[in-house]
Formats: sequence, structure tokens, C-alpha cells
Amino acid sequence: MNNRVAVVLCGSGRADGSEIHESVSVLIHLSRAGAEYRCFAPDAPQTEVINHATNKIAAGAPTRNMMVEAARISRGEISPLAQLDPAVFDAVIFPGGFGVAKNLCDFATKGAECSVLPDVVRVIKGFHEARKPIGMCCIAPVLAARVLGTRMNGPGCTVTLGSDERTAAAVQTMGSKHAARGVSEAFTDTTNRLVTSPAYMYEAKPHEVFDGIGAMVAGVMALAASKK
Amino acid sequence: MNNRVAVVLCGSGRADGSEIHESVSVLIHLSRAGAEYRCFAPDAPQTEVINHATNKIAAGAPTRNMMVEAARISRGEISPLAQLDPAVFDAVIFPGGFGVAKNLCDFATKGAECSVLPDVVRVIKGFHEARKPIGMCCIAPVLAARVLGTRMNGPGCTVTLGSDERTAAAVQTMGSKHAARGVSEAFTDTTNRLVTSPAYMYEAKPHEVFDGIGAMVAGVMALAASKK
Repeated sequence: MNNRVAVVLCGSGRADGSEIHESVSVLIHLSRAGAEYRCFAPDAPQTEVINHATNKIAAGAPTRNMMVEAARISRGEISPLAQLDPAVFDAVIFPGGFGVAKNLCDFATKGAECSVLPDVVRVIKGFHEARKPIGMCCIAPVLAARVLGTRMNGPGCTVTLGSDERTAAAVQTMGSKHAARGVSEAFTDTTNRLVTSPAYMYEAKPHEVFDGIGAMVAGVMALAASKK
Repeated sequence: MNNRVAVVLCGSGRADGSEIHESVSVLIHLSRAGAEYRCFAPDAPQTEVINHATNKIAAGAPTRNMMVEAARISRGEISPLAQLDPAVFDAVIFPGGFGVAKNLCDFATKGAECSVLPDVVRVIKGFHEARKPIGMCCIAPVLAARVLGTRMNGPGCTVTLGSDERTAAAVQTMGSKHAARGVSEAFTDTTNRLVTSPAYMYEAKPHEVFDGIGAMVAGVMALAASKK
């Protein structure tokens, strides 16, 4: 049977939702690996809407729903994050984008003291406790660093966020560890069955991000195929 | 010097703009080929806004600007289509998506009798007359079939739209020709220096579309490197 992989999105766009290149790269690599994927997103408004041509808050204060926007990336098929049951999937992957730090948690404003959306905490803990692999890229690894960090009474985990010192320091404050890696690499924390890749934490080219996410997806699939 | 390639978008989403997987696949393949790309889109409202989770017209009749939405795909860097000067690029690529048939022309409602946006006509004729290659995928080849078709006093061209008979018939009515191809293939009309690939004209998997667009981009780059 093919592996079933849940992909967690939170909008569609680098500045207020899921980063589009990263999300699509995840889907292409899962598709090539023969995995069956299903996309999920919170059925709730984004924290803000950014005009991506100007990088300013969109005029007229519009609101957009994370799940409805994420359906643009998934080509329609999408479910509310509240319905994501770790029991029926073999792995979960979180692409990055500033929306992860604004919508799925408030790392963008609170840093190491951030709160994480309860459904995201439930999903990360659910897959982690079931020894099912978790893949993350770009800024998304802060979710695992926080939820599994010793400051939240977790075991602590090790992630890569590229070479960004400020974010690495926040990870340490959370009670997790940081491992520097290049854009086309992934880092596997075998103890926690957690695979991370820096993606657009670097000023990178699209094919470099695509390759790093390929390494991350390959790491997740290898863990899913290995003994728990 | 690296090849400079213009990419023409028209929003961000399969149902009302540029198809996201196709657009990102174009950027990844151009990036890997070492091309310098620049994205363009009309600085004007989309014809409509579709809720991609329900596939119905979005409630409240919101409007979205094609260029502002396309900036989500390009990660911010974008220019109005009116500023696309064929003289300063080596090639142009049009990804697909229903927005091509709703925003860049009205093929979605008028079929073979469709009107094409004047700036799109100018860009296609400009690259074609300069013998600079044009790449297109999914439904976008109807733009070339119409603009270069004998019904518009053009030379006629040959494109692939996969195996869709209704669209192939429309291409013939326009005074162009259709060549059936598989999802991971591209067809090159060497006379017109035009390369097309079916992409999501098929019910395809993301990696199949990625590979077909890879073949299309490779065809465009080969033509750009060859004698005019």
C-alpha cells in the first residue's frame, strides 16, 4: 500500500500564508514517490492579508480564509485541519512561509515565547507519539522546536533553519537544538523521526529549494518505510 | 550571458488565474537551466474570483488584481504586462490555468471566436516576428493558435493540448493545427519556434506535469540557443 501523507497549509503566499514554491515542491516530490497526499489547513481567517506586489498590508483590510486560499495550491482538494487524524496517515509535512509564523503560531511577533495553534500542537504530538515521521521546511521547524522543546516539557528535538543565527537562538531558548545545513540539504533527527530543510530561509533559487525539499521528502519516506 | 525569459501570469489559482503547479514548475526548470526570469501580469482585475475549496464564485463578489495575485507565485518581483518589451528578452513562457481562458482571452466563453487581450497579442506577435521562442502549456496554447492562426491572417501554427478533442477542434477553426501528445511530453513547432505541453489538460499527477513542463522549458532553451 502507498504511504499516506498529510500536508498542512495555512494560506497561499510567502508573506501571509504557505510559501507557494515550497508547498508545490512538497507535492511534486510526494507524487513522484508514489505517496497519496491530502492537504489540510485551519478553516479560519489568516492573521493578515499582504499585497505581495508591494509587501504591504492589503488596502481595505480584506480577510481571507486559510483553507480556502490553500485550496489554490492543492487544486481544490482540502480538509479542515481539525479533521486531521494522525491515526490514518503515515507521515505529516509542514511547508514554510511567513504564514506559519503568523497563522499557525505567533513566532513572528513573540519569538521563542510563541503560542502554537492547538490543532497544530495536537497534530505534531500525535504523529510524534505514534513514531510517525514529521517533515518541515523553511520557518516551519520552529513549530516542532517549540511543541517538542524542553520548555514545553517535551524531549527537545534538533532542527535546521539554515544558518540564521537569530532563529537558531530562539530554538535553543525553546529547549531544542539547531544544526546548520545548506539550502539543498535536509537534516534528520532520528530520535524524534523529524526531517527539516532550510528552503527559503536562504535567499535561494527555486531549483535549490526544490532539491532541498526533495531531500526532506526522501528522508520522511525513508523513515516511514523503516521500523518504528 | 544567461538567457532572459519573460513569464506571463494572470493571477494565482487554477480556476481564476495561473495554475500554481504549472507556474512554479516553469520557474524551477528555468532556474535550473540558469535562465534569468522576470514575471509579468496584466495590472487589471481578474474576470472573476473563484473559491477554490468549493469551486464556486467567491461570496461577496470580491475583486482581485491579476498582477498583485501573481506576485504570490513570483515571490514579490513582478511587472505590468504593458512593460514587457520583447526586445530585451530571449524567450517568453505562458503557464496555463483557467485564468488564461478567462483573463488573457475569452476562450472560456467564446471558444474559437475568442478575443485576446491586446497586450498578449502584442507580446506573442513581438516574440514570433523576432524569431524568439515561445513556450506554453495547458490551455495557454489556444493563445498562439488564435493570434498566429490563419483566421487572424497569421501563418497558422501547430500546438498540443493533450488529447482533448473539443479544444483541438477549436484550434483547427482558428486556422492552426493540433498534435496529440502525452502529459510528460512537449511538442515543438520548429517553423514558428513554439513549444507546447499539455500539463493539466490531463487529469495528471503533479510530477507528470512537472516533467512535461521540463520538456517544454528544455525545448524553449534549445531554440533560444539555436540560430534564428
